[in-house]
Amino acid sequence: MSIQLTILGCHSATPRSDAHPTSQYLEINNRHFLIDCGEGTQMQLRKNKIKFSRIKHVFISHLHGDHFFGLIGLISTFGLLNRPHELHIYGPKDLKVIIETQLRLTKSWVDFPLHFHLLSSDKSELIFEDKQVSVYTIPLNHRIYTNGFLFKEKRKDRKLALDKIKSYPDIYICDYHKIKKGFDFVRENGEIISNDLLTESPHEPLSYAFCSDTSYHESIIPIIKEVDLLYHEATFLEDNKELAEKTKHSTAKEAATIAKKAMVKRLIIGHFSNRYKDEQRFLKEASEVFAEVKLAETDKVFTIINKD
Amino acid sequence: MSIQLTILGCHSATPRSDAHPTSQYLEINNRHFLIDCGEGTQMQLRKNKIKFSRIKHVFISHLHGDHFFGLIGLISTFGLLNRPHELHIYGPKDLKVIIETQLRLTKSWVDFPLHFHLLSSDKSELIFEDKQVSVYTIPLNHRIYTNGFLFKEKRKDRKLALDKIKSYPDIYICDYHKIKKGFDFVRENGEIISNDLLTESPHEPLSYAFCSDTSYHESIIPIIKEVDLLYHEATFLEDNKELAEKTKHSTAKEAATIAKKAMVKRLIIGHFSNRYKDEQRFLKEASEVFAEVKLAETDKVFTIINKD
Repeated sequence: MSIQLTILGCHSATPRSDAHPTSQYLEINNRHFLIDCGEGTQMQLRKNKIKFSRIKHVFISHLHGDHFFGLIGLISTFGLLNRPHELHIYGPKDLKVIIETQLRLTKSWVDFPLHFHLLSSDKSELIFEDKQVSVYTIPLNHRIYTNGFLFKEKRKDRKLALDKIKSYPDIYICDYHKIKKGFDFVRENGEIISNDLLTESPHEPLSYAFCSDTSYHESIIPIIKEVDLLYHEATFLEDNKELAEKTKHSTAKEAATIAKKAMVKRLIIGHFSNRYKDEQRFLKEASEVFAEVKLAETDKVFTIINKD
Repeated sequence: MSIQLTILGCHSATPRSDAHPTSQYLEINNRHFLIDCGEGTQMQLRKNKIKFSRIKHVFISHLHGDHFFGLIGLISTFGLLNRPHELHIYGPKDLKVIIETQLRLTKSWVDFPLHFHLLSSDKSELIFEDKQVSVYTIPLNHRIYTNGFLFKEKRKDRKLALDKIKSYPDIYICDYHKIKKGFDFVRENGEIISNDLLTESPHEPLSYAFCSDTSYHESIIPIIKEVDLLYHEATFLEDNKELAEKTKHSTAKEAATIAKKAMVKRLIIGHFSNRYKDEQRFLKEASEVFAEVKLAETDKVFTIINKD
């Protein structure tokens, strides 16, 4: 079980050639997700040699340009490449109008199925689920309707301890399914063999929470509690706390405080304002509150492997 | 008098980190124009250290994404930077709906005046004019409604030959205006002093024609005749002539043929399909027809100074 997070862009507002707007590519349990899609994301995907065909689900946090202006280009490119796979897009309700208006007026309708899953709830909700992964919204507090996203591996079945099982000749292969699900084994004479004598615990499921853009907002703490990896925006430092409040962004200290209160295992901060030349200042401010913090960097890959 | 053309992007269809879609920045007679605005143009402008405030006129050839998907991001950035200057956008009529839909639904109305000049004529027309420069459309033949653009310096007044004028004591400063405009000088005794004895010819006005995207289309020849610099698309080589015809693009040979027939002074070709790894093949094919040809290259600056 592993999480691999590629930072395609981690700067706020106005993009520059060395400061790409928000986008992340997440691999979790062999599922591949694109989170936000600022201008230039398709070039960043190419640069990081990420296969376009793997992207079947795109999550858009909110409709500020630095988080979604690259989406129409990505969809259009998928169309030009004759992509056969369907594409699912999760985002605020007006996103569908914006994309479809452009496809219609540019006469660029794509041939692959394009499904919009439009969000408008202010409560956390399950928006994607398969056998491996669940995705929930994390309602954030920004100037416009905004969600973060929580990606959770599903707990796997218990692992069979085959060396131990073999000492019970009356346990057959057909019994394994129930044992993996955690049931005790009942012998013909009524003797109960406790499940923990036959199995081992599976890996602990990993989880990743993406929270951008938002002011300091403690309501998210129960949702992101104890996640293995939290990305939390840190647009400003404390020296611009008033500006952070006014624009509904967070400081590095606030991001670290959220991480600490939610008892997450690791924190990445990003969405840095271009006004700061030295991003190490973000690291310094955050690490004074929460030690396990790293800076987002364009093209950097963060990997978490659960070896339990 | 000079033309300075910066190639911000010159590749077709699907952008990559090393293949930017179409955009050009033109300086002609101290006027500054942006021509087309594919995704990532604002990053390319930054990279080339082009001042955003200089851009007051943007010309969009057609509504295929690789020619305008960067425009909403550029407008949005101008807004975030609190630009005071007005911005004029010239392009197909649906462009206004596309941009305004996004500004409205993302609640990102900009404070500077944003003027759309919407094009729908299939005839060449004057769309911009000031004291220095005129801009005309060049109707092209593509899959959707498309215009190229012809930028022409205006002819300056004749230059006073002051050493010669001084030999006529009855010519006063107040007479200079008419003489510069080409009038002969009439002395009190009725003697006519021919204007060419008093003035020299001004520099020949320079002109630049931008033609992308289009099939081989001889109707443009009278419009672009004898321009100093022609950019003509060359998406394909002759080995893909059928594909060029089908998609209404040109081959390098066709671009060169247009240049030759229009007797232009210099040709730049671009909008190369990503299928070709060696762009020198475009140069070879075109130069067999027209010698004064160069390849467009991202971030390359072409300068023409009129020293006549």
